[in-house]
Amino acid sequence: MLTEIKGINEECGVFGIWGHEKAAELTYYGLHALQHRGQEGAGVVVSDGTSLKIHKDTGLVNDVFKQANFSDLAGKAAIGHVRYSTQGDKGYANVQPLLFHTQQGSMALAHNGNVMNAFELRGELENEGSILQTTSDTEVLAHLIKRSTKADKEEAIIDALQKLVGAYAYLIMTEDRMYVALDPRGIRPLSIGRLGDAYVVASETCAFDLIGATFEREVLPGELLTISDDGVESTRFAMREQRRMCAMEYVYLSRPDSDLNHVNVHASRKRMGMELAKEAPAEADVVTGVPDSSISAAIGYAEQMGLPYEMGIIKNRYIGRTFIQPSQELREQGVKMKLSPVRRIVEGKRVVMIDDSIVRGTTSRRIVRMLKEAGAKEVHVRIASPSIISPCYYGIDMSSKEELIAANNTLDELCDQIGADSVAYLSENGLEQAIVKDKTIHQGICTACMTGKYPVKKEKESTISYSKS
Amino acid sequence: MLTEIKGINEECGVFGIWGHEKAAELTYYGLHALQHRGQEGAGVVVSDGTSLKIHKDTGLVNDVFKQANFSDLAGKAAIGHVRYSTQGDKGYANVQPLLFHTQQGSMALAHNGNVMNAFELRGELENEGSILQTTSDTEVLAHLIKRSTKADKEEAIIDALQKLVGAYAYLIMTEDRMYVALDPRGIRPLSIGRLGDAYVVASETCAFDLIGATFEREVLPGELLTISDDGVESTRFAMREQRRMCAMEYVYLSRPDSDLNHVNVHASRKRMGMELAKEAPAEADVVTGVPDSSISAAIGYAEQMGLPYEMGIIKNRYIGRTFIQPSQELREQGVKMKLSPVRRIVEGKRVVMIDDSIVRGTTSRRIVRMLKEAGAKEVHVRIASPSIISPCYYGIDMSSKEELIAANNTLDELCDQIGADSVAYLSENGLEQAIVKDKTIHQGICTACMTGKYPVKKEKESTISYSKS
Amino acid sequence: MLTEIKGINEECGVFGIWGHEKAAELTYYGLHALQHRGQEGAGVVVSDGTSLKIHKDTGLVNDVFKQANFSDLAGKAAIGHVRYSTQGDKGYANVQPLLFHTQQGSMALAHNGNVMNAFELRGELENEGSILQTTSDTEVLAHLIKRSTKADKEEAIIDALQKLVGAYAYLIMTEDRMYVALDPRGIRPLSIGRLGDAYVVASETCAFDLIGATFEREVLPGELLTISDDGVESTRFAMREQRRMCAMEYVYLSRPDSDLNHVNVHASRKRMGMELAKEAPAEADVVTGVPDSSISAAIGYAEQMGLPYEMGIIKNRYIGRTFIQPSQELREQGVKMKLSPVRRIVEGKRVVMIDDSIVRGTTSRRIVRMLKEAGAKEVHVRIASPSIISPCYYGIDMSSKEELIAANNTLDELCDQIGADSVAYLSENGLEQAIVKDKTIHQGICTACMTGKYPVKKEKESTISYSKS
Amino acid sequence: MLTEIKGINEECGVFGIWGHEKAAELTYYGLHALQHRGQEGAGVVVSDGTSLKIHKDTGLVNDVFKQANFSDLAGKAAIGHVRYSTQGDKGYANVQPLLFHTQQGSMALAHNGNVMNAFELRGELENEGSILQTTSDTEVLAHLIKRSTKADKEEAIIDALQKLVGAYAYLIMTEDRMYVALDPRGIRPLSIGRLGDAYVVASETCAFDLIGATFEREVLPGELLTISDDGVESTRFAMREQRRMCAMEYVYLSRPDSDLNHVNVHASRKRMGMELAKEAPAEADVVTGVPDSSISAAIGYAEQMGLPYEMGIIKNRYIGRTFIQPSQELREQGVKMKLSPVRRIVEGKRVVMIDDSIVRGTTSRRIVRMLKEAGAKEVHVRIASPSIISPCYYGIDMSSKEELIAANNTLDELCDQIGADSVAYLSENGLEQAIVKDKTIHQGICTACMTGKYPVKKEKESTISYSKS
Repeated sequence: MLTEIKGINEECGVFGIWGHEKAAELTYYGLHALQHRGQEGAGVVVSDGTSLKIHKDTGLVNDVFKQANFSDLAGKAAIGHVRYSTQGDKGYANVQPLLFHTQQGSMALAHNGNVMNAFELRGELENEGSILQTTSDTEVLAHLIKRSTKADKEEAIIDALQKLVGAYAYLIMTEDRMYVALDPRGIRPLSIGRLGDAYVVASETCAFDLIGATFEREVLPGELLTISDDGVESTRFAMREQRRMCAMEYVYLSRPDSDLNHVNVHASRKRMGMELAKEAPAEADVVTGVPDSSISAAIGYAEQMGLPYEMGIIKNRYIGRTFIQPSQELREQGVKMKLSPVRRIVEGKRVVMIDDSIVRGTTSRRIVRMLKEAGAKEVHVRIASPSIISPCYYGIDMSSKEELIAANNTLDELCDQIGADSVAYLSENGLEQAIVKDKTIHQGICTACMTGKYPVKKEKESTISYSKS
Repeated sequence: MLTEIKGINEECGVFGIWGHEKAAELTYYGLHALQHRGQEGAGVVVSDGTSLKIHKDTGLVNDVFKQANFSDLAGKAAIGHVRYSTQGDKGYANVQPLLFHTQQGSMALAHNGNVMNAFELRGELENEGSILQTTSDTEVLAHLIKRSTKADKEEAIIDALQKLVGAYAYLIMTEDRMYVALDPRGIRPLSIGRLGDAYVVASETCAFDLIGATFEREVLPGELLTISDDGVESTRFAMREQRRMCAMEYVYLSRPDSDLNHVNVHASRKRMGMELAKEAPAEADVVTGVPDSSISAAIGYAEQMGLPYEMGIIKNRYIGRTFIQPSQELREQGVKMKLSPVRRIVEGKRVVMIDDSIVRGTTSRRIVRMLKEAGAKEVHVRIASPSIISPCYYGIDMSSKEELIAANNTLDELCDQIGADSVAYLSENGLEQAIVKDKTIHQGICTACMTGKYPVKKEKESTISYSKS
Repeated sequence: MLTEIKGINEECGVFGIWGHEKAAELTYYGLHALQHRGQEGAGVVVSDGTSLKIHKDTGLVNDVFKQANFSDLAGKAAIGHVRYSTQGDKGYANVQPLLFHTQQGSMALAHNGNVMNAFELRGELENEGSILQTTSDTEVLAHLIKRSTKADKEEAIIDALQKLVGAYAYLIMTEDRMYVALDPRGIRPLSIGRLGDAYVVASETCAFDLIGATFEREVLPGELLTISDDGVESTRFAMREQRRMCAMEYVYLSRPDSDLNHVNVHASRKRMGMELAKEAPAEADVVTGVPDSSISAAIGYAEQMGLPYEMGIIKNRYIGRTFIQPSQELREQGVKMKLSPVRRIVEGKRVVMIDDSIVRGTTSRRIVRMLKEAGAKEVHVRIASPSIISPCYYGIDMSSKEELIAANNTLDELCDQIGADSVAYLSENGLEQAIVKDKTIHQGICTACMTGKYPVKKEKESTISYSKS
Repeated sequence: MLTEIKGINEECGVFGIWGHEKAAELTYYGLHALQHRGQEGAGVVVSDGTSLKIHKDTGLVNDVFKQANFSDLAGKAAIGHVRYSTQGDKGYANVQPLLFHTQQGSMALAHNGNVMNAFELRGELENEGSILQTTSDTEVLAHLIKRSTKADKEEAIIDALQKLVGAYAYLIMTEDRMYVALDPRGIRPLSIGRLGDAYVVASETCAFDLIGATFEREVLPGELLTISDDGVESTRFAMREQRRMCAMEYVYLSRPDSDLNHVNVHASRKRMGMELAKEAPAEADVVTGVPDSSISAAIGYAEQMGLPYEMGIIKNRYIGRTFIQPSQELREQGVKMKLSPVRRIVEGKRVVMIDDSIVRGTTSRRIVRMLKEAGAKEVHVRIASPSIISPCYYGIDMSSKEELIAANNTLDELCDQIGADSVAYLSENGLEQAIVKDKTIHQGICTACMTGKYPVKKEKESTISYSKS
C-alpha cells in the first residue's frame, strides 16, 4: 500500500470468532490478513465464558502479538481489531478493542467506520455525568448501551445503534454473546463465515482464506447478529435500504484476493482496467502499473489493448518504519524512496502508466518525472477510477477538498501539473460496470468521494475533528 | 522472495562508492536496494582519507542503520555489504565488511561468492602461525594479502587473488584506495557506474537506479579495478575467458529491475515464460504465478498463449521475522502462511501455475494442493527454467543433491508427487534464448546446477563445510 | 529495598509542581527520588494553561521517561506518580496519573493510599450509568467529582472527598488549578515546598532535596489546598483529628533522607536501634544489619551497645528485573541471590543481626542460616519495630493475617522457626519514643498493623479485592 | 561505585570453572558478583570437551545473559569476563573472552590487567604477517602462543607469557584444559576455590560466596595452573618475587565482602578509617561517608573517634544508564544527580566527610558545597588513603598526572579548592598497617599511584595509547 504518499487511508479492520478452542490465535491470523487496513495498532479480546481478557498495543500485528502469550488468552470466543490512526501521540488508549468492566459484567467493542454525530452524542453523555476515556466513536456506543433503559442487552444495543448516524461495522462481545452490527446502508464491508462449527466475522474475506474458513454470507445493511452457543440470530435495527458499499474498497483499499459483496477485488480492478482501455485507449508501446494496488488494472488495460504489460516501476519491499528518509539534498541528486523506474523497460518507449486514483497529485507528478528521467518517450496516465473531488465522511481519511487536485483543476491543468502527455479517468459508469457486474447480487456502491452524492447525510462538520476508528 | 521455503539462497550483495561527500549514506541506500541478496546482516566501512570507520550488525539494513550516526561516518569513500547466512549463531563477527587494523594501516573487505579452496588456504595460513577470526572466505583473502611478499599493495592483492579458486566479487578498501575484483569467469554479477564525479560499484544495477547513478559498464572477468582520487585503473589478474554469469541470477535471485550483463531481469523472465509457452503449452483457462519472483514469467506465458493472467495466489506482505508460525494443528485445519489462493479466481478453472524453479518440491506440492482445495479443476505446473539437479559451488546455498527432487525423480514421478495434472520445465536452450538474446554482448551463462557442467572445477568437497559470504 | 522478599510493599508516590518553566522535567527528577515507592509504572501530566498532556507507561521512571520528549511536555504545572502494582497484567490503563477529557475541560489525578469503600462507590456510579475504565480508587474520585451537583470545581471536589473512607493523598490538576488533598487522619505522608516562586508537593521530602527545593510544611489532615497562579488557598473538608502518620513509613518504607512530619527517617531508625539496644541487649561480638533499610538501626544498636558495627551481609547492587533466578538445584548447592554473608566478618563470631521487621519470616530464616553457614557462632535477631500481627487497609500491600509469622506464633516458636539463638522486638513504646521525639510537633502515629487498633474503620472486607493505588 | 565521577576505573574481572554440569550458569552468577569490575561488556566461553561455544555482548551481565540460552551452552568448563572500556565505539569485538578457532582446535582467553609492551609485541607479530583483530592485550598473547615453536601447549603458553611485561591475570581455555596465569609480582588479584569436585577461579572471592564455593588459596605470583579432568598442576614461569597486590583494590575497587590475599576488604577499610582517626582527628559532631565505597572507613573513623556515624549523604540507587542528566540550567537551580545531602542530619553540625580517595577533586568540591548548602557548619574532609600523584600502568584507568589534583597542589591549596574547613590524608604507613595486618601472610602491596615507586618498569610510554583489558 502506498498509504503515506497517497493520502487515502483506510480506517481499521475487524475480526471475530465464536466457538473455537484457538480463538485468540486465529484472531491473530485473521488480523494478519487485515493488516493493510490499519498499521498503527492491534488487539484482541477473548472470552472464556466467564471473563474477558485483552491484549493490545500500538504497532503492527506481528509486533503486538509477539509479546502475547496465547495460553493467557484461552477462550472460545474473540474479537480483534487493526487500527489506522491520524494521531501523533502514542494513543495506546485508543487502540481497540475497547474493554469495559463493570460489577455486572464486561463488554468489548471493535469498530470500523465513522459515526458522524459522535461529537453531539458525547456532549449529551457528559452532561449526564459520564466520563469518556478515548476520543473514539466506539466508546460512545459503549456508553449509549450502558445508559440505555432497556434491561435486555440486545435491546439496549439496538436502542444505542439507532442513535448513531454514519457508516460502521461493529463487533461487540460480552462473556457469553457476540453482537455484529452493520450500518443501515452497508457502506463498510463485513462478512460472516464458518470454520468447522465456529462462526467467523471479518471486514474482508481474505481473513477467511488465511485461516481456512469458508464464506457464508455478507452481513446485511442494518442487521444485528447475535452469536452465542445457541447459534446465530438475526434482527434488523434499521429500515431495509439499498446497499451502498464503498467504491474505494474495490478501487484501492481492500486486498485483491478479497470478495466484497460477492465480487472479487482483483477481478473488479482488472475489469476497471479493461473498461478504461475501452474508454481511453492510448497509442503506446508498453503498459505499466503503480505497484501494488494498480497492477491488476494495468494487466486488464494491457490485455484489452493487446499491448505488453511490463514492470516499468518497481517497489522496494523492505521499506519499513525504520527507513531513514533521504535528505532533500540527496533526493535532489536522485535518491529514490519507495518506487524506482526500470530504465531498460521504459527507455525510448511510449508508456501507459496505470494508477488506481489520484488524490493530491504529488505522487503522480513524481512517478511521471521518474519515468521520463529513465528515458520514457511519452507517459500517458490512465486512472482506473473517476476523479476524487469530495471528502469522505464514512471512515476513510482523505485529504481535505482544498488538497484534492481533481477538485480544483481541469483535466488539462492536471495533465500539465503532473507532467504527463495525456491523462484520462475511468467514467462513473465504467466503474459501476466493472464492480457491479450483476445487479441482482450487488445492488449499489457509494461513490460520494467521486460524485459528491452522499447516501447518508452528515449532521455537522464538527464530527471530523474527532478521530474515527 | 520465498527464500526460506524454497531452499535457494543468494549469498550477499556488495556496494561501493568513491568520491562523494555522503558516501556512507548512499551506501545505506545502495544496500537497501540489494537487501533481497541477504537479510542476516549489513554493514559499511567508510574512509575519510586517514582512517576507516565501521558500522555493522546482524539484521536487516534498516535495523542495522537506524542505530548509525552518519555524522560519525564522515568520509568520501565507502564499501558496504548485505549478508545471507546459514549459521544459527549470532554471527556478528562474520557480518561484513571485515575491517583489519595494523600498525601500518587498515583494510576493509566485502565479498559475494564462494572460494572453493578456502579450507586449504586457511590450513596453510594457520601452519604459518596466523589466527583467523571468522569462518569466511573474505578473511582468507585478507591474510593472503598481508602475507604476500609484494611490497606494492596492488601487486599483493593480485598475488593473493591468483591463489583463489571459485566465484567471487570482492571490494577491498584502504585509507586511499578502493580495489574491485571479479572472478576469472565472471560468475557473480558486478557493475560499475557514475554518480556525478563519484564512482559506484554494486552487485546489481538496481542499486544505481535507487541513488540516481548511471550504469557505466560491467566489471570484466578477471579484472582488478583500482579506484583512487586519480581515477580508475584496470588490470587483468587472470586469462581472458568466456564470461559465465550465473543463470539463477536471472531466474530467481536478482531484482526484476536490475540489468545483468546488459539484460534486464524482468524482461528475461518474461521471455522465459514466453519460451515456456512455446515449448510446453497447456489447455487452460487462466495463468497465475507464484509471487513475487514468478510473476514476470507468468505474464509472459499468458501473453504468448493469449490466456488471461490472473492473481490466483496472493502473498502476505506483512510476514516478517516476528511472525508466529501456526501450530501443526492449525495448519491442518487450513491456516495458511505466506501464500493464499484466491478462490474466486481459480474456482472451477483449469489453472496454469508458473514457478521459476523447483528445489525440494515441498512448496510446489503445497501450492498445488492449495489451488485444488480452492476449487481449481486442473493445475498445470510450468517451470520457467530447466530442472535443478546439481549443487552450486559458486556461492548459492542450495539443498544437497539428495534433496533435489528433480535429481531423484522422473518428470512423471515428480508430477505425481506434487499432485499436478501436468508438469513441464523450460529447456536449457529455451533458457539461453531468453537470457542471451544477443550473443555478441552476453557471451555465456553458468548453468551448472541445471546441467552438472561446472565452468570452474572445485578442488575438494571439504570447501562446502565452510560458510560462504 | 527488599520489597519482593519481604512482603511489605509501598503503594505509590506522588509529586506535583506549579509555576516552573520546566515542570515536566522537574517532575521526572522528583519521581526519581520517589522511585522506591513504586517500580511498576510512572507518569506525568503537564498543563500549559490551556490543555493537559500525558506521558506514562509501565516500568521504572528512567525507562518510562527515556521515551519522553520534554519539548512535547511544555507547561508550567505538572503532577506525577510512581506506581506499585500487585496485578500481573500489563496494566497500562492503571498507570497514573489518570487523565480525563471532557468537552468542558480536562482533569488529571494521582493518588497514594487506599479508599476502603471504593467498591460500594463504584457500584453506585455504575448503577447511575457510568463506565469506569480502571480498577483504581483514583477513577472513583474522578467520577464522584464529575457527578457532583456543585457547580464550583473546588466544592465538587470537597463533595466527592467527603464520600471517601480511607487513607489517601490526592493530587488533582485541571488546566488552571492544582488541588492537593490529604485524608482526615493524615495517615499517608504529603509535604509542600518551594522552588523559587514555584510550589512543589511530594510524598516525601527527599524529592525536594533532589531538585533543590525547600520544605515549607506538611499538608494537614483533612486539608484541601488549591494552587493557582494566584497562590495557595487552604480549606478543610474534614473535622480536625489527631494525625496518625503510618509508622511503617519510618520503619521501612520511606527513604532515610526524608523527613516525615519533621522527623528524619534515618535518625528515627537509628533511635529505634538505640531503644532496641536498651530493651533487648545481646551478648555478642559484632552488630550487622540487613541492607539497605536496617543499616541505620544496626548502627544505632551498635553505638548504644558499644559494639563494632560490621558489614556482615552484603547486597548485590546489580540485581534488576532481568536477573535470571537460580534454579532450585543451584540454590540448594549454595547459589545466593540478593544477599551474601561476609565470611571473614562473621566467622567464629556472635552476631547481632538487626532487621527492621519480619513479615512471613522466610527471609529471616534464610539470612540466619546463611550467617551460620558462613561460620557465625551465634545469631541474635533483633527487630527494630514491634511485631506485625494485623493487615493494613490504608494502602500498604502486606501479606494476609494467615501468613504473618508473628500473628500465629509465640516468640519462642518464631525464634525456633527462623533458627536464631534469640529474637527480640522493639516495644510499641520504644517505637513511639524513637519516632515521636517531640509530642507537640508530631502528634501520633498509626500502628494498626502492630496493634490491631485501626484509626479509620473499614466498612467492608470486599474493598481489599480491589487494587489500591 | 562512583566510577564516572571519580576517574578511577577498574579494568575487568575474570571467572572460571572446571568440572561442573552447570558451568555456564555458574559463570553467569560469578560474573554477577564481579559486575563492579566492569560494566561495559560480559561474556562466557564454555567447553563441552570437544568444542568451545561463546556468548558475549556489550552491556551489563544481566542484559547480556538474558539473551543467553543456557541449553546452548552445555559443557562442564567455562571462563567468563566482565569488561570496562574507555572506548566510545560499540566495541563488540573487544568484549571478552576472545575465542579463536583453528583447524587444530580452539582457544579462549580472558584477561584482567595491562601488558605494558603490547604495542611492541603487536608490531613484531604484524611484521611476521599476522593480522590482529582487536586492540586488546589478550589477543597479543593468543598470537604469541600460536606462533610459539614449542609443540606442547603448556610450554607454548609459558614461552608466550615470558615475553609479557606488566600486570595480568589470564584465564585460557582449550577444549580439554584451563590455564590460569598471574603476573610475576601478583599485582592483580586472583583466587582459586572449590565447589564440590569442581575448581573455580575468580578475580575476587565474593564470586565464590555468591555461588557457595569455598576459598582454596590465592594464585601465586608467576604461577601457571593447568586444570584438567586429571586435577590441577602448578608451574612457575617467573622467578619468585615479593607479591605486590594493588593497594587500590583495597581502597576502592574491590567489593567489601571480598578477601584479597586473606584480608577482608571491608575490614581493611574500617581499619583505614581507624588509622585515619588516629592520624588526623577532627573536632566534629558527626561522621559521614561518601556512599558506597567510603562507608566502611567512615564507620571505622566514627568508632575510633567515639563520634556518631550518620547518613549525611545519600546515593540514589535507581540511576542507571538511561538516566536523563539535568541541564546546566537545572543543575544551577539545585537539581542533584547521584548524591543528595540529608539536611536534617548535617544542618548546624560540624561534619567529618570521609572519602576513600581524591582524583581530580571535582566530586569532593561538589560534595563539600552540597553539605554546606544543606547547613553544615564545618566540613572536614578525611581521605582514607594517601594522595594519588602518579598514573597506574597496571590496568587501572586513572586520569593523567596533569589532572591529579594532589600531584599539582599543596594540601592547603587542595583544601581551598574543594572548599573544606580541613583536609587530611591517611599516611602510606597507616595504609600499610590497615591492609597488611599480618606481614607473614600478606607480603606487600603496590602503592605506585601514591608513591611513584613502580614495582614493574614500563618499557615505553606508547603502551598507554592502547586499550587495556
